[in-house]
Amino acid sequence: MVIVMAPEATQDDVDAIVELVGTAGGEAFVSRGVSRTIIGLVGDIEQFSSLNLGGMRGVADVMRVSTPYKLVSRDNHPERSTVWVGGVPIGPGYMTLIAGPCAVETPEQTLKAARMAKAAGASLLRGGAFKPRTSPYAFQGLGEQGLQILAEVRAETGLPVVTEVVDAHDVELVASYADMLQVGTRNAQNFALLQAVGAAGKPVLLKRGMSSTIEEWLMAAEYIAQRGNLDIVLCERGIRTFEKATRNTLDVSAVPVAQRLSHLPVVIDPSHSGGRRDLVLPLTRAAIAAGADGVIVDVHPNPEQALVDGPQALVEEDVAELARVVREFPPLLGRTLT
Amino acid sequence: MVIVMAPEATQDDVDAIVELVGTAGGEAFVSRGVSRTIIGLVGDIEQFSSLNLGGMRGVADVMRVSTPYKLVSRDNHPERSTVWVGGVPIGPGYMTLIAGPCAVETPEQTLKAARMAKAAGASLLRGGAFKPRTSPYAFQGLGEQGLQILAEVRAETGLPVVTEVVDAHDVELVASYADMLQVGTRNAQNFALLQAVGAAGKPVLLKRGMSSTIEEWLMAAEYIAQRGNLDIVLCERGIRTFEKATRNTLDVSAVPVAQRLSHLPVVIDPSHSGGRRDLVLPLTRAAIAAGADGVIVDVHPNPEQALVDGPQALVEEDVAELARVVREFPPLLGRTLT
Amino acid sequence: MVIVMAPEATQDDVDAIVELVGTAGGEAFVSRGVSRTIIGLVGDIEQFSSLNLGGMRGVADVMRVSTPYKLVSRDNHPERSTVWVGGVPIGPGYMTLIAGPCAVETPEQTLKAARMAKAAGASLLRGGAFKPRTSPYAFQGLGEQGLQILAEVRAETGLPVVTEVVDAHDVELVASYADMLQVGTRNAQNFALLQAVGAAGKPVLLKRGMSSTIEEWLMAAEYIAQRGNLDIVLCERGIRTFEKATRNTLDVSAVPVAQRLSHLPVVIDPSHSGGRRDLVLPLTRAAIAAGADGVIVDVHPNPEQALVDGPQALVEEDVAELARVVREFPPLLGRTLT
Amino acid sequence: MVIVMAPEATQDDVDAIVELVGTAGGEAFVSRGVSRTIIGLVGDIEQFSSLNLGGMRGVADVMRVSTPYKLVSRDNHPERSTVWVGGVPIGPGYMTLIAGPCAVETPEQTLKAARMAKAAGASLLRGGAFKPRTSPYAFQGLGEQGLQILAEVRAETGLPVVTEVVDAHDVELVASYADMLQVGTRNAQNFALLQAVGAAGKPVLLKRGMSSTIEEWLMAAEYIAQRGNLDIVLCERGIRTFEKATRNTLDVSAVPVAQRLSHLPVVIDPSHSGGRRDLVLPLTRAAIAAGADGVIVDVHPNPEQALVDGPQALVEEDVAELARVVREFPPLLGRTLT
Repeated sequence: MVIVMAPEATQDDVDAIVELVGTAGGEAFVSRGVSRTIIGLVGDIEQFSSLNLGGMRGVADVMRVSTPYKLVSRDNHPERSTVWVGGVPIGPGYMTLIAGPCAVETPEQTLKAARMAKAAGASLLRGGAFKPRTSPYAFQGLGEQGLQILAEVRAETGLPVVTEVVDAHDVELVASYADMLQVGTRNAQNFALLQAVGAAGKPVLLKRGMSSTIEEWLMAAEYIAQRGNLDIVLCERGIRTFEKATRNTLDVSAVPVAQRLSHLPVVIDPSHSGGRRDLVLPLTRAAIAAGADGVIVDVHPNPEQALVDGPQALVEEDVAELARVVREFPPLLGRTLT
Repeated sequence: MVIVMAPEATQDDVDAIVELVGTAGGEAFVSRGVSRTIIGLVGDIEQFSSLNLGGMRGVADVMRVSTPYKLVSRDNHPERSTVWVGGVPIGPGYMTLIAGPCAVETPEQTLKAARMAKAAGASLLRGGAFKPRTSPYAFQGLGEQGLQILAEVRAETGLPVVTEVVDAHDVELVASYADMLQVGTRNAQNFALLQAVGAAGKPVLLKRGMSSTIEEWLMAAEYIAQRGNLDIVLCERGIRTFEKATRNTLDVSAVPVAQRLSHLPVVIDPSHSGGRRDLVLPLTRAAIAAGADGVIVDVHPNPEQALVDGPQALVEEDVAELARVVREFPPLLGRTLT
Repeated sequence: MVIVMAPEATQDDVDAIVELVGTAGGEAFVSRGVSRTIIGLVGDIEQFSSLNLGGMRGVADVMRVSTPYKLVSRDNHPERSTVWVGGVPIGPGYMTLIAGPCAVETPEQTLKAARMAKAAGASLLRGGAFKPRTSPYAFQGLGEQGLQILAEVRAETGLPVVTEVVDAHDVELVASYADMLQVGTRNAQNFALLQAVGAAGKPVLLKRGMSSTIEEWLMAAEYIAQRGNLDIVLCERGIRTFEKATRNTLDVSAVPVAQRLSHLPVVIDPSHSGGRRDLVLPLTRAAIAAGADGVIVDVHPNPEQALVDGPQALVEEDVAELARVVREFPPLLGRTLT
Repeated sequence: MVIVMAPEATQDDVDAIVELVGTAGGEAFVSRGVSRTIIGLVGDIEQFSSLNLGGMRGVADVMRVSTPYKLVSRDNHPERSTVWVGGVPIGPGYMTLIAGPCAVETPEQTLKAARMAKAAGASLLRGGAFKPRTSPYAFQGLGEQGLQILAEVRAETGLPVVTEVVDAHDVELVASYADMLQVGTRNAQNFALLQAVGAAGKPVLLKRGMSSTIEEWLMAAEYIAQRGNLDIVLCERGIRTFEKATRNTLDVSAVPVAQRLSHLPVVIDPSHSGGRRDLVLPLTRAAIAAGADGVIVDVHPNPEQALVDGPQALVEEDVAELARVVREFPPLLGRTLT
């Protein structure tokens, strides 16, 4: 931790900080510059946080120099992790395709979508039974009935199921059906939910908040990890920017950046970031090429009748090209499709 | 609702839409332009939503021309509303100052802060017992013990209490102590929580999500209203932008914009938006001058020891100036301090 | 300047930096933390910049702790400055209203707008003869003919003229007519233009780039100052964010922040930030209340026929209220309308 | 063009618009909805723009439904274009690597960098002689001397030269040395410069403004095209967002989006968007996979001594991997390295 003093700070101000840090069991090193004095702190950073150093007289800025997350940080766990979901790996050396309908609507639609997913090379099935919607008047998902449909389709196709949970108190229910729990972008800082999925004993797909920095995203993962669950897969799904041509802006740089900061696997959702079907295949290719450990894609047998996000779903005629992409690109990066 | 056809759309594509709209009980008016054809729809917009018109062949864009919220819209309720909290009004003609500590830490600190608030002209006390924090290692609030402290300080000072609730399943507990429930910026799209506070029978202070558009903010209010609670006060608290000099960028234009779109009162939080004590008074003045119905401010008797957000709290020596501001500016706008 | 070493940095990496800094005439203070080593540098920062310390082995981050601008910084010039334009002051203690048409269209329109401006309390006339437009098909201004109209209207009304220059090679021409040169938001990093207006011997109104940080804005001012011209007035005019209800988001916090960092006066443009007439008066009040040294407003006798930005111009019926606002609010802040 | 009337608009308001549009030679189709009336306009859109319809009484919104650019639009030129630079093609079917130093510093450094570029597979040499810098105290480039060095290195290596021009009045000089003129991100709306390069008779590499929407970027290209020059290559180089881990956020979706809207080739700059060497290769792969027509990369023989942007340059040991990437990925997309 580094403290930058204001130009008008006095010697007394500096001394007060050195003393305070000392009483907290740390050491303070003072460097006097031409225009500014800086103080480097050595010791337990959590303890310094509680000192409220930023509130001391003469302090212009307090800069953290180490990461605020620990369990998910690569600093303490240099090897990248692999997370297993119903026997399917997500991690280095693999390319995992997760596909399925945005929302579970009927058994037929879900089964057809699962078969499209499988034909495209998917080893995991996505599908939402609980849907967080901006409008209270929009379709909110089938709830437990949707979970049952997913379980039936899993039995039929053999694909383990990834599905979203939106309320801490539904975690147990959803976990009883799902192979992997998804936390959506609107819940990226719903800390009660993060803690609940951390305790549920199932792998978690953690979407980045649409306006979360990468650091905040990793802090959200830390909430889950702190409850004893390190089976977390990070999912970049587009961030909110000024650009209006796409629903969100896919931050493809987040893949190498997050992989460098954290040992957790990182996948990309090219469907929700772009919000447009014609962008899904280009962004899928970009995601794989950037080094993503997997891709999660919406497919729908009949998107013009979809109750949620129809315009972004891949359709039957896209399946062959998606299959080609996930088969041909990963080997160039030393990866194998799971 | 307006449908814009792609340049390459055929007559058949247009006919298909006209027919579909007709079967849904609506009417479609076709205008053929030089480069584009547009179709204006007349009828029940909710019904059109479920048609997934954006997924039809030849459609380039679907534009909504009426607001997606109804209960909170000023279209259907032209007069601006006043919300009463423990006998204190927030609404047109009034200026309501809400003040107190960011977090409840001890009975003494809370009482002192409440007295500072009162001296500054506040008629409502703010104070957090449940704190949503980015880091799982940060102080998360005193919980129910904090609520008890708030109740005691209310008894001592007569100030009704505004306090945050972060989990749908704590709503009943918090509502049993509080006069007004606060929904924080990180929960702006926690729909389960919005629905729960909508059913709690207490007024709600709804903070704008730090990356919510004004429309999304009003949709969040609609979630609350839909459960039968129209005692909602909107609170602008800064949005996320590229600027780094302030924690968030206070969107002061949101006051007149939201007041034009919705009949609900709008207040401003100048403490959390700026994140810096030296900005609180200038932003408080700007908020009042822009026409806000109230201001919510952090005060702390001892901010250098605050467990949360100390650097932004006003201190004893700011109280007189805050009192002057909330007394002298509102009359220029035809408002009276409550 | 502070250097943060990567966790894997070796003693040799640290030694190499200490030695390099020494050869450049500086001193390096090493603080070894539990997880990170930091090095504080003391000496001439410009010299350190050319060392490319960020490229050295083992370096994770290089953090500047002093401001990169000097001439416009308040560090070296604690007293706030007043800039005089044709005998009219802009600075502490004053409130200066600048008003006029967005674009000069005809002598009649410009004269009428100038009279509206004067009736509202303006002491300076704005009006564009050179207009930077996003579309090459849009009206680009009358050029020199527009400057002549402005000069005639100045003769008629006595109002000194503020007008934009968009090309370095027009600076001399524009300066021969104008009392103050405006640099627009799209030219905030047009360094050739900044240098040319710096050498022109006329005061400059420097608009913030719509996506410039406050630091970049002050760096742009530094370009002007470096050519010997410190008669610079900073103008906040809205920044680009995700919000779509307003054309740009007025960053009202920029007023106190920029006034704290720089000694230059700061004014606000409430017309271009909001892009909507109904926001101009609320934002004018907010600007004054936040402590702005002035406000620059579009007025038009006939906005429905305006060639540029008609929807945001104040009209005849707004003049009385604008006059009231600029007369009644400034005294509460110890300011007098010029 | 579609006009949305406010809920309170009267029949007279609607009639006034219909009449006005008629006098301008257009036709207006009125659709009366339950809550809103909309009017679809058919005719010459440029003429409607000058009517200032947004300023008419009762108008809530005016929505354009066709693109505001024409010459660069794919609507009128469905086939994608190929731009030739000194005999090297950029366009569909090709993958063009442009590489070289960010800034020309010495003949030796430039020659070495050019050889690295060639070894990596580049067919064009980049290098800046005029550098737009945020700080007036930073190295601004060698000017004409830098252009001479580039010409010598071209003679030596056979690589045609791409170099930036920052002032309209330098265009002739720069064009006399360069094979392709670059317009940088800070000049994305420097209209005088855009017009000057449009008239210079050389191909142009047009970087997207760091806060330009894709539409504004295409409007900037339209400025160049309007002067008779359609040899324009669009270059995405990262946009400004709230994320701080990268200098800018590479908007990889801009590749398919811009290629769909415009017939011009689109390339990506992975060096300036990320600002970090470790991101250059992942983003290069992502760019190619997304369908970019080319990539422009910084390389430097000695980045720790670079005067500009050293931390983002690829170094000698990256050359082999860059060569592999530009050789192996393009064939999967039906492209050949030029």
